[in-house]
Amino acid sequence: MASVQALKSRLRSNYRFFLPYRLRWADNDQYGHVNNSVYNFLIDSVVNTYLIESCGLRPTDPNPSEPIGLVVTSSCNYFAPLTFPDVVDLGLRVNKLGNSSVTYEVGFFQQGKDTVAAVGGFTHVFVHPVERRPTAMVEQMRRGLEKLVVEDKASL
Amino acid sequence: MASVQALKSRLRSNYRFFLPYRLRWADNDQYGHVNNSVYNFLIDSVVNTYLIESCGLRPTDPNPSEPIGLVVTSSCNYFAPLTFPDVVDLGLRVNKLGNSSVTYEVGFFQQGKDTVAAVGGFTHVFVHPVERRPTAMVEQMRRGLEKLVVEDKASL
Amino acid sequence: MASVQALKSRLRSNYRFFLPYRLRWADNDQYGHVNNSVYNFLIDSVVNTYLIESCGLRPTDPNPSEPIGLVVTSSCNYFAPLTFPDVVDLGLRVNKLGNSSVTYEVGFFQQGKDTVAAVGGFTHVFVHPVERRPTAMVEQMRRGLEKLVVEDKASL
Amino acid sequence: MASVQALKSRLRSNYRFFLPYRLRWADNDQYGHVNNSVYNFLIDSVVNTYLIESCGLRPTDPNPSEPIGLVVTSSCNYFAPLTFPDVVDLGLRVNKLGNSSVTYEVGFFQQGKDTVAAVGGFTHVFVHPVERRPTAMVEQMRRGLEKLVVEDKASL
Repeated sequence: MASVQALKSRLRSNYRFFLPYRLRWADNDQYGHVNNSVYNFLIDSVVNTYLIESCGLRPTDPNPSEPIGLVVTSSCNYFAPLTFPDVVDLGLRVNKLGNSSVTYEVGFFQQGKDTVAAVGGFTHVFVHPVERRPTAMVEQMRRGLEKLVVEDKASL
Repeated sequence: MASVQALKSRLRSNYRFFLPYRLRWADNDQYGHVNNSVYNFLIDSVVNTYLIESCGLRPTDPNPSEPIGLVVTSSCNYFAPLTFPDVVDLGLRVNKLGNSSVTYEVGFFQQGKDTVAAVGGFTHVFVHPVERRPTAMVEQMRRGLEKLVVEDKASL
Repeated sequence: MASVQALKSRLRSNYRFFLPYRLRWADNDQYGHVNNSVYNFLIDSVVNTYLIESCGLRPTDPNPSEPIGLVVTSSCNYFAPLTFPDVVDLGLRVNKLGNSSVTYEVGFFQQGKDTVAAVGGFTHVFVHPVERRPTAMVEQMRRGLEKLVVEDKASL
Repeated sequence: MASVQALKSRLRSNYRFFLPYRLRWADNDQYGHVNNSVYNFLIDSVVNTYLIESCGLRPTDPNPSEPIGLVVTSSCNYFAPLTFPDVVDLGLRVNKLGNSSVTYEVGFFQQGKDTVAAVGGFTHVFVHPVERRPTAMVEQMRRGLEKLVVEDKASL
C-alpha cells in the first residue's frame, strides 16, 4: 500500500483515463464541503464508465457468461476540501490486475488545479452475474484494464 | 400550471441557461434507470449554480442582509428514462418571479437528443439566513433571475 | 388536487400505513436541514416497502408476468424543516387507484410531533418488467393497495 | 490495522453503541444490492448521532471554541450483501483516541443475523469550525469517546 505521503503527491500524469464530474448542490453537507461518502459515488462512476465504454461491461443486460465486478474493499484519503459548484477531473489507474480481481486508484483534481484533493479506490472481484461466485474476467475486460495498469511501488 | 402535454413538448429553445451533468453509477436504481429522486438533486444543482455564478448567492458565507432560497414545493414529470453513463443537458428558466419567491422550470435533455426526457421544478422562497423568515430578495438576485423569465401561458 | 392548505393540516390519522426512518448525516445540506430531494428517497422507500411486504412485488427477481411500478410524476410540499438526527414517521395512503396506475400520498411526521412537516407523493404506472409498456396490475397488487385507499375530496 | 479475516469475524459484542437504520429503495444499485458508497453514509450517521447525543457536538450552531470533526481517511470491507428493505443494526467502537483525532470502526449487522455483513470506519481530525486547523478536542468530546474505546490488537 502506498504511504499517505506518496498519495498526497500524485500528479495528473500519474493517471491514465480522465472524466470531468460536475458536483451537485446536495453533495455539500452541513459543513459546506463535499461529504466524504460522495467521493465513493464518483470513484464508482469513473470506474464503471470505463468498464462500459472500453471493456464491454453491460450491467443492465448481462450475458450469463460475462461476469460483473463487485466491490469487496474501498478506501479514500482526503487532502483538501471540494465544494459545490466545483467541477472535478477524476483520474483513473489500475494498481493491481489479477485473474478475477482488479484494484483501481482514482485521483480527484479540482479543475484549474494540479494538486490532488483526494485519492481513493476499491477492489472489484468479478463474479457470475446470477450466482455471484468469483470467476475469471473475460478477455475483453482484461485487455481494457491492462491499458490502465501503472507499475508503481507506491500504489494503493 | 402547464398541462403535462405542454411540458412533454418542451424544446431546448424553451430554456435560457444550460449546464451539462454527467450521471453517476449509483443514480441508477435496481430497475436500471435513473431513480426519480435523483432528478431533484439535479434541479437543485442547476438552480444553485446559476444563483451563485450569476445572482451573487454565497450559501456558505451568508451576509446577514442577504437572503437564501428555501424550497417550499417541488415537482417533476418523467417522460423517458435516463440511464448511467448518459450525460444530460439541463435547461433552466423562470416561470414566475415575485418579490420574495421564484418558480423555476428545468428540462432534461440527454446529450445528442432533442426530445425532453423530464420536466421538473420548484419554488424558492427567500428567507433571512438566520431567522428563516420570508423577505424580499436583493436587487442583484432579482436582476439575475429576470434574465431567465419566460412569458408562457403553459408554464408550471 | 388537494389545496396546499388541506395538505398542511394532515394528521397522523389521515394515513393507513407507517414506517419510521432514521435520517442520515448527509441528508442535511449546507443550510443545515434535510435537502428537498431526500424526501423523494423516503417516499420511494415507504411505497416500495409496502409493495414488497404487502403486495407481492419482487423487484430484483421479477416474474415476466408481474409488472413493476415506474414513477411518472412526483411532487412534494415542505411545511417545516427536518434535521438530522431526527427520526421521521412516514405515513402512506392511496389517493387514486386505477387499473394500471396508482397515486400515493406520504405525510412526514417528526417523532414526538403531530403537525405534518411535509406532504408529497407520486404516481406509479405499472409496466411489463422487460418491455416497459403499461399493463394492468396483478390481483395481489390491487388487493394490497385497496387497503390504503382514502376517499377524500382534498387529495393530491 | 486488523486483518480482513479478523474484521470478518466481528461479533455484535465487539461494539459499544448501536443504532438501527432502515435502508432506502435507492440504496440498491442496478445490481440489486446496497451500493458500496451508501455504507459510508451510514458510518457517518452513527458516528455523528453519537457525537451529537453523547459528546456535545452542535454541528449547525458551532461555538467558535468547540471543534468539529473532519474525515481525513475512510475505508470499508464488504463481506455479504445488504438489500432494501433490510433494517441494519450499526455497531460503533473507537479503535484509537488521540488529542485531536479519533478512529472509529462500524460493524453492519442485518437485523436477525449475527454474522457481520461489512466493517468500515474513518478517522476524524478535530478542527476549529471556521479556520479548519487541527486542534485538541474538548473535554466533553473526549469523555464521550472514551466510553467507546476497545483495546484490541486487531483493530482497523
